[in-house]
Amino acid sequence: MFLSELIPMSKALAILDENQKIMGTETIDLKNSYLRALAEDISSFHDSPPFDKSAMDGYAVIAEDTFGASSNVIKELKIIDQIGAGSFSDKRINNGEAIRIATGAPIPAGANAVLMEEYTITENEGTVDEYIEIHSQVTPGENVAICGEDIKKGDKVVQANTIIRPQEMGLIASAGIASIEVYKKPKVKLIITGNELVDPSSKLDKAQIINSNQYVIAAMIESCGADVDVSYSQDDFDKVKESLLSSSNDYDLIITTGGTAISKGDVVVDVVSSIGEVLFHGVAIRPGKPVGFGKINGTPVFMLSGYPVAAMGQFDALVRKFLFKMQNIEFNPRREKRCADVKIYSNLGRSDYIRVFADENKVRSILSRGSGVIRSMVEANGYIISDENQEGIAKGDIVDVVFFESMNWNK
Amino acid sequence: MFLSELIPMSKALAILDENQKIMGTETIDLKNSYLRALAEDISSFHDSPPFDKSAMDGYAVIAEDTFGASSNVIKELKIIDQIGAGSFSDKRINNGEAIRIATGAPIPAGANAVLMEEYTITENEGTVDEYIEIHSQVTPGENVAICGEDIKKGDKVVQANTIIRPQEMGLIASAGIASIEVYKKPKVKLIITGNELVDPSSKLDKAQIINSNQYVIAAMIESCGADVDVSYSQDDFDKVKESLLSSSNDYDLIITTGGTAISKGDVVVDVVSSIGEVLFHGVAIRPGKPVGFGKINGTPVFMLSGYPVAAMGQFDALVRKFLFKMQNIEFNPRREKRCADVKIYSNLGRSDYIRVFADENKVRSILSRGSGVIRSMVEANGYIISDENQEGIAKGDIVDVVFFESMNWNK
Repeated sequence: MFLSELIPMSKALAILDENQKIMGTETIDLKNSYLRALAEDISSFHDSPPFDKSAMDGYAVIAEDTFGASSNVIKELKIIDQIGAGSFSDKRINNGEAIRIATGAPIPAGANAVLMEEYTITENEGTVDEYIEIHSQVTPGENVAICGEDIKKGDKVVQANTIIRPQEMGLIASAGIASIEVYKKPKVKLIITGNELVDPSSKLDKAQIINSNQYVIAAMIESCGADVDVSYSQDDFDKVKESLLSSSNDYDLIITTGGTAISKGDVVVDVVSSIGEVLFHGVAIRPGKPVGFGKINGTPVFMLSGYPVAAMGQFDALVRKFLFKMQNIEFNPRREKRCADVKIYSNLGRSDYIRVFADENKVRSILSRGSGVIRSMVEANGYIISDENQEGIAKGDIVDVVFFESMNWNK
Repeated sequence: MFLSELIPMSKALAILDENQKIMGTETIDLKNSYLRALAEDISSFHDSPPFDKSAMDGYAVIAEDTFGASSNVIKELKIIDQIGAGSFSDKRINNGEAIRIATGAPIPAGANAVLMEEYTITENEGTVDEYIEIHSQVTPGENVAICGEDIKKGDKVVQANTIIRPQEMGLIASAGIASIEVYKKPKVKLIITGNELVDPSSKLDKAQIINSNQYVIAAMIESCGADVDVSYSQDDFDKVKESLLSSSNDYDLIITTGGTAISKGDVVVDVVSSIGEVLFHGVAIRPGKPVGFGKINGTPVFMLSGYPVAAMGQFDALVRKFLFKMQNIEFNPRREKRCADVKIYSNLGRSDYIRVFADENKVRSILSRGSGVIRSMVEANGYIISDENQEGIAKGDIVDVVFFESMNWNK
């Protein structure tokens, strides 16, 4: 009865797309924006650099005055001013003159190059009215960063729907902007169900299972740039109902674990169906076919398995993309081609998430039985995703490996 | 004068190694351990699963009783008990009998396999004393997760000096452990110097430069798993001295930007030299040769350039590895081989960090002049690191690309 209801992965993804929720936005200080999702295009108020500036410590000169200088042919220039960082000079350089200049300071009028300090000799640290001896030549423009060479005023420097890295923070600051509009972080409620579950302990009673999903799935939610609160409920219709109903008012997304199979104690899907709607239940993926998705009071609900590795597979296959898109970020994990080192089994008509270990050249599957085996997720560093049209992989086949690390928000 | 003092990159790294500081440890709740650095080996208190358990919803059976069953050959078994998740049965199965069982529940005595629910027909949902009709056979062991198949009691399941991902949290929980020893997060003080610096604004006075390092370098510190406080100081010997002295008592590491060149206003190196020791100043890397390292009251101090891209290059080349190792984590960014799409310039005797964009097959350098150009860091997705023994890269050469995303803590 159950197997006949499985929908293909592509159909599940289409249903998720139709029901995709997008977060609202908020304005925050650029200081707090690392790894947030930018919600506006950023255009620059300024040229950057805002003036022709020196790229070196040295002397602003007329390049032509230095032509021919070498260690054998010393030339002399008269120092007429000094410009430290943050200050500028109103003087204009004429032939035979130089102004001592710090890295980053504005090039004075008349000068067209900067001669590095190490190619000059002075007796009194470049005091005004002294002379410098120069023993190297510079070309026009040398060691000068031209106004606007990095950014031109009005240029769009960062596009909306980008995860903000340190580099983007630098560009936004240089554009003259100190506060920005970002998507709000999704507030996710994780509800763990299962009468058999207990917290980690060195002693376990018969039939008790340690509740590891409270840690694993919570951290996976964090790894998608969202905030998470975790609670626990027994496999009891009314208790699960109460928890789901109140969460549907307070959170942007609900994720449950446990209670998605079809045995008597599995109440989660029944509860969602009674107080909201179940949009799918049962997807042709492995591990993790008993996965559901629905809505309660407009709040999306993912119903994952209680089995840790099934829940992790379901999360990677379906939830990550949804959480990224809630913040308007495309979910594009890194795929690399590798040569299959052994035969890898998968089934036609089913999407297989095969846990693998890939080195620089090859990939092998991490053999394990059963979806309870977390150890296989620790030893693996990625998935081969064998889609519904593919039946197994032969030794020597070139396959795409999706790396775990690249499935995270922090890229 | 300055160029003659440059030390090679390898020498700088050796000095950093000799002066590597390692954080102390603290005990935290497993709930808060995502992306922390584990400081102890974790061994398991339990077998996992802790008993032979059902991997499916269905019926615990003696496999041999099902042999020969098919859609044409229906067999019957008597239901003698039901086991929901979190409970167990004291009954023993004899030939001709079955016990209804939920996923995750312990296999009852006598049974050696689980027949999936969908291969059975019942009239009353598997009520005790009713019969099920079975139309498929199972092999001994089928749909049973064997006690200890994932983890054996006493097994070392996670090694010290590992960054904790969701998977590791799951294994540690399954091992029966709810609180763990991790390295303390380094507390880093970032001191921005530079008279020319102002906060981002739509209006700038002549010679003013926007302070972007306060964002960029702070976020880079965060991207290495550390906490950061930021302050600003003018290029004034006494002010910089006061800030460095007080920070050396309160922080595990100090990073400065600006004031590392050799012009008059560059006081940072002089201050460190007067109140502590400068262990190197000037490294043959590009961008970023005017980089320094020293100690004040035993606290390591990195002195980075004021120029954003120079500071970023210095951070990537020298600081990341140091911050990782403070938490006893090896810094091993991902390197992939790519074919150079254009000729790339670099110099013998110098380590070049060349900003590049690599796609699946090829790599090209992001052309830019000067180390002020943050935009090049946004357009690039990695570095080619050309070491001191290498002189340029020809079109068609196969080179290693180090990807930015893999230089972060969150992997």
